[in-house]
Amino acid sequence: MPQHIVVIGAVAAGPKAACRFKRLEPESSVTIIDQARLISYGGCGIPYFVSGDVSDPDHLRSTSFNMLRDEKFFRDTKDIQVLSETTAVAIDRADRTVTVDLPGGLERKTIPYDKLVLATGSRPMRLGVPGDDLPGVFTVSDLQEAVDIRDRVAGGEVGRAVVVGGGAIGLEMAESLADLWGIETSVVELRDQILPGNISPNMARMAQRHMEEKGVSFFLGEEVKAFEGDQGVERVLIREGFLEADLVIVAVGVRPNTGLAREAGLTLSPSGALVVNEYLQTSDPRIYAGGDCVEITNLITGKPEYWPLGSLANRQGRVIGTNLAGGRDRFEGAVGSFIIKLFDISVASAGLSLEKALAEGFDAVSAFVVQFDHAHFYPEKDLLYLELVVEKNTGRVLGIQGLGNKGEGLLARVAAVASILHRKPTTSDISNLEFPYSPPFSSAMDILNALGNTAENILAGRNRVIDPDMFARWWEQRDKGDTLFLDCREWGNAGPFVEKYPGHWKNIPQGQLRDRLAEVPRDKRLVLICNTGVRSYEAQITLDQAGIPDSYNLQGGMAAVKKWGLEI
Amino acid sequence: MPQHIVVIGAVAAGPKAACRFKRLEPESSVTIIDQARLISYGGCGIPYFVSGDVSDPDHLRSTSFNMLRDEKFFRDTKDIQVLSETTAVAIDRADRTVTVDLPGGLERKTIPYDKLVLATGSRPMRLGVPGDDLPGVFTVSDLQEAVDIRDRVAGGEVGRAVVVGGGAIGLEMAESLADLWGIETSVVELRDQILPGNISPNMARMAQRHMEEKGVSFFLGEEVKAFEGDQGVERVLIREGFLEADLVIVAVGVRPNTGLAREAGLTLSPSGALVVNEYLQTSDPRIYAGGDCVEITNLITGKPEYWPLGSLANRQGRVIGTNLAGGRDRFEGAVGSFIIKLFDISVASAGLSLEKALAEGFDAVSAFVVQFDHAHFYPEKDLLYLELVVEKNTGRVLGIQGLGNKGEGLLARVAAVASILHRKPTTSDISNLEFPYSPPFSSAMDILNALGNTAENILAGRNRVIDPDMFARWWEQRDKGDTLFLDCREWGNAGPFVEKYPGHWKNIPQGQLRDRLAEVPRDKRLVLICNTGVRSYEAQITLDQAGIPDSYNLQGGMAAVKKWGLEI
Repeated sequence: MPQHIVVIGAVAAGPKAACRFKRLEPESSVTIIDQARLISYGGCGIPYFVSGDVSDPDHLRSTSFNMLRDEKFFRDTKDIQVLSETTAVAIDRADRTVTVDLPGGLERKTIPYDKLVLATGSRPMRLGVPGDDLPGVFTVSDLQEAVDIRDRVAGGEVGRAVVVGGGAIGLEMAESLADLWGIETSVVELRDQILPGNISPNMARMAQRHMEEKGVSFFLGEEVKAFEGDQGVERVLIREGFLEADLVIVAVGVRPNTGLAREAGLTLSPSGALVVNEYLQTSDPRIYAGGDCVEITNLITGKPEYWPLGSLANRQGRVIGTNLAGGRDRFEGAVGSFIIKLFDISVASAGLSLEKALAEGFDAVSAFVVQFDHAHFYPEKDLLYLELVVEKNTGRVLGIQGLGNKGEGLLARVAAVASILHRKPTTSDISNLEFPYSPPFSSAMDILNALGNTAENILAGRNRVIDPDMFARWWEQRDKGDTLFLDCREWGNAGPFVEKYPGHWKNIPQGQLRDRLAEVPRDKRLVLICNTGVRSYEAQITLDQAGIPDSYNLQGGMAAVKKWGLEI
Repeated sequence: MPQHIVVIGAVAAGPKAACRFKRLEPESSVTIIDQARLISYGGCGIPYFVSGDVSDPDHLRSTSFNMLRDEKFFRDTKDIQVLSETTAVAIDRADRTVTVDLPGGLERKTIPYDKLVLATGSRPMRLGVPGDDLPGVFTVSDLQEAVDIRDRVAGGEVGRAVVVGGGAIGLEMAESLADLWGIETSVVELRDQILPGNISPNMARMAQRHMEEKGVSFFLGEEVKAFEGDQGVERVLIREGFLEADLVIVAVGVRPNTGLAREAGLTLSPSGALVVNEYLQTSDPRIYAGGDCVEITNLITGKPEYWPLGSLANRQGRVIGTNLAGGRDRFEGAVGSFIIKLFDISVASAGLSLEKALAEGFDAVSAFVVQFDHAHFYPEKDLLYLELVVEKNTGRVLGIQGLGNKGEGLLARVAAVASILHRKPTTSDISNLEFPYSPPFSSAMDILNALGNTAENILAGRNRVIDPDMFARWWEQRDKGDTLFLDCREWGNAGPFVEKYPGHWKNIPQGQLRDRLAEVPRDKRLVLICNTGVRSYEAQITLDQAGIPDSYNLQGGMAAVKKWGLEI
């Protein structure tokens, strides 16, 4: 029997659910309601529209075959009715109706449903500080706001911009302002690193440094106290003074938009997101929900997690569409996967960072490997930086993070791990992962396999490592005299450091170490150094065998230290 | 107690096993024996050395930090003895000794072992036709032969070359000759497609066409009868005449090099490969084996398979090294993963092709999707072509193949599936695979997810498809008049075809189809066409609903037909 489905929200999960359902039950009918005028757009494209990479906002609302996804499109090609500029004001679950305010707000109407889909999305958080609502202080809430930002930027009114929030959207917006418009851009972030939920402090520092080289300034561990200005924003007050700004973008996260659901008595999580089962049903089985308004299961921790991601919204939409039509598709949850382009680099992750793993109670450790993306003898190649987070006792892989050039080599490694992460792989799975091999694309022992191997060696206690930030700390304290920096490379690489830092920096090439053990002091902590951490690991084994145990292998070697930005 | 390990074979698996073992048991000793002078090289780099991309053969023998992996390197940095130009002539398993001929062959010596590793590799097959041994007829057996080929090419002696074998090595060699040296190059292949074990005929045809555009000629379904010439090869006789050639490269596969193992009474497979258990032990538990001389388990079919791949050899080497030191690391087998660069495109696969799946007795079908690699609104993007092979009743994913540009976007999708394939994923796993999303790298509903969705729709009978080669066949027979080609795009795309082929090609844009059903003939087979197969799938649903069931959706749409090379 034909059903009538009502969908509230016409951005990602909503239209996807509606279209999937209509393909399965063409004889049924669907109405989508959205309060905005511009619907069904790629919200993740907003930074690229602001930058000018995407020239027209309509491109974010078009299909890959250049048809604008407006009301007419949904009617003609999908046989779906869309009511835009229409606000859902109440759900009557007993009567199975949605009450809406029609465009202009003058008329109210009641729409019956057999099943209802809530895809009401999220709202950007505001800071709640004085001046929060000054003209020129934007969030990135929807396409209309993006158009307003770009109009202002393109009008030449903006010389200086401040982005509040060093997460993905904040950084993408910072790049789009600084890169193509040449705006002097600063990022203010409360935590002491950028991308705090996604990557380790080490890798965050590498990414930050790249953005600084491209002209973006960072104020970490900083807090916005107020926005000030006459006609519009002119200054951002922070703890340590103020930043001048003609434009402010507040990107400090989003909150699920669930007021309607709350009033309808549906079960919400403590953070206000809709609670759904694996079929994406809310506490009312006739009401489904997906996208930025729901909480799902983190498949690594087993706990609920709020992930407002366009990719998950689309996949959830399809599952909902199937189940509206009587299917039993499951959406089990997610491990969380992430990638971002920042000027000429990419940063990506899947699963837990070490910080998050520790906070979740895992007894975890991380391995860090630097290696070429392609066969090292292949002329076109670039270094990749990968970190694997593993549980100590079990060897279970909890997450991967990485940094690479703006090509897709990093994506490939992180995607290969993202796809398997919910199946509880161990380091051995990564050591033997069948990453497709050919010299222009990868190594016979790919960096991903090497990462698994390194993690296993660390867990076995064979490879005792330090990260670049620990290295930097010990280096700063070198005058204490308790640490010797032992460079295991050939003289050509090591010589300049030995000459610059006599007494601190010593060179014994790894191949000579067994014959020159007498030169190694036994009363000092040794930091073993090579280009990427491979030869220094060999050196550590030689030292262990010789009964000199107090050595630490610099993970990622000088390549990592350089990327990290330590000037020595 | 320290052990003495002997390793026979110093290319990939052998040195890897030796080095891993020495790191775990530094107090033990290792001797590696190899009959060649040049050892421990990246054999997969040979085509790039022949092309000139890799300038010096030593680069293939060097570490990533530019140290030549010769005897001295192994002695100094690894504490491993290498005996090159030394031939193992017999294994005495009772005495635990290996008899070797020392360099020059004048002296014979016996080396005792506690454990032995066989990494004797493979030998290229020869054709066994007249003229097989003429000067100028090469295989790609080792680095020395590669040097000889390049000397000849660089000497300007080669105007025309014939490559026998359209597998990976043959095609890489063809590219290296044609691309950088401008040699008129032909490929002769016995089967009727290139890369027959790896990809479908459809995709093979697309790859072949690209190589033809770059100047390589193909003779498929052809057989070499003889090589002819006076001082050296001048002509290659095939069934249909002959090809002139100053250089011939025979790349028709390799055979495990296991004469020594056979004489020692170790268990071999019917095809002559060493049989090993999951710890990579041969039938003699003191003798391990890995690399091109062993057979392993295909984790999709569960049957033994021979995969001479450098990547597997390296990973097996590490497992052997661990187990030599008393570990119990397992090498369970492989699903088979593959990637190749061919001029400006990449071709990749993991698991089974449809042809192989059917041959193995799976009731399988394939889904084919064409979509942009990045968000369709992002300015830099390119089409990807992916095929998923699935089992009909279970929805189990058996393999993936694809074609893309020479970047790493294809690699990323295939790697994501390769890593999970041994865990028996279903289409739903692919639909929900967490491919990291951001517009410069992927789509919110990535092509990989779309591929899972499409496969599921095909299995459910909702999407009835044809491939470009079936399309080409029906198109050739269009004058029979039983088929109407119904173009579901807008007039701008469809118009030229309607005007060129009246009576055969009709245009009803998908958005108008429901209102124009009366125009659709009910007595003809319908081929539904759009750019990539998405709108034609929507059209098929509309036709089904209207009771017009005899329609076929052209998978991959006109994008696939164009890539396939059908001129219409």
